[in-house]
Amino acid sequence: MSFRDEVLEANAAYVAAFALGDRAAPPTRRVAVLACMDARLRPEDALGLSLGEAHVIRNAGGRVTDDVVRSLMLSTAVLGTREAAVVHHTDCGLLGMTNEILRARITELTGEDASEVDFLPFDDAERTLLDDVLAIERDPRLAFDAVSGFIYDVRSGRMREVVV
Amino acid sequence: MSFRDEVLEANAAYVAAFALGDRAAPPTRRVAVLACMDARLRPEDALGLSLGEAHVIRNAGGRVTDDVVRSLMLSTAVLGTREAAVVHHTDCGLLGMTNEILRARITELTGEDASEVDFLPFDDAERTLLDDVLAIERDPRLAFDAVSGFIYDVRSGRMREVVV
Repeated sequence: MSFRDEVLEANAAYVAAFALGDRAAPPTRRVAVLACMDARLRPEDALGLSLGEAHVIRNAGGRVTDDVVRSLMLSTAVLGTREAAVVHHTDCGLLGMTNEILRARITELTGEDASEVDFLPFDDAERTLLDDVLAIERDPRLAFDAVSGFIYDVRSGRMREVVV
Repeated sequence: MSFRDEVLEANAAYVAAFALGDRAAPPTRRVAVLACMDARLRPEDALGLSLGEAHVIRNAGGRVTDDVVRSLMLSTAVLGTREAAVVHHTDCGLLGMTNEILRARITELTGEDASEVDFLPFDDAERTLLDDVLAIERDPRLAFDAVSGFIYDVRSGRMREVVV
């Protein structure tokens, strides 16, 4: 069975159990979460967030980029979120990596040039998490009341808060 | 109770039920999903994806941006995903919106200039989804075997595949 067939079959079961309803777009807990795309992390489950409660933004590393700021501006200014949380995790593929190695890997596999791409690798996990928390706190176009930072342990499922 | 206290309490329950294990970083189903950040969508649940099976990238609209391409390059070239799916949804906050309205809203709420930001609003939901599917298919730095597109109905939980 192809992935699309598997998806449609799984979704039919999901629909059968789905609680129908007119939910409005603004997240009911007024929270926006930025997390890594890692397959071993399910931010809603690990943070105790139910359907409809929070925006979830995810990219490689859970790093703050222009696109993340775009999403967060819409989240807070248009859809009323008031608190943000950044979630990085243990064993991240970007930890200890360099742009040189990652660019060479893209060229090796595709023959294409990736020399202009900053993959946002990092060496110090706690420092990088705090940098991303501060980037959200200090952007004047964002107006969250509070921003917290967590490192998720992919082996245990545990969230550890990291504070300045 | 503050959001961070609620998170840590909810996470303690999550950890207690967590199946410990040494999961490797590469997604076991070799799939990367790009979806909207909308609070009413939980892509893993709606697509039938379990912990460890797929990368999940999310932003406002589920739109393909430079940051999404960065994440997808890492997903496929470094972590071995071979198939991608794009998930947009009904009642999206970007549908029928304009940059002018969104920029004015940011300025109104924060006093800051957002005239340089493209919020990636759209008018035609199916066309925009197919544009994003094609953007992934046609980027030579990405080498997925297949890319599919779905529109998720936030009222029913149903995924509808959209094909060219």
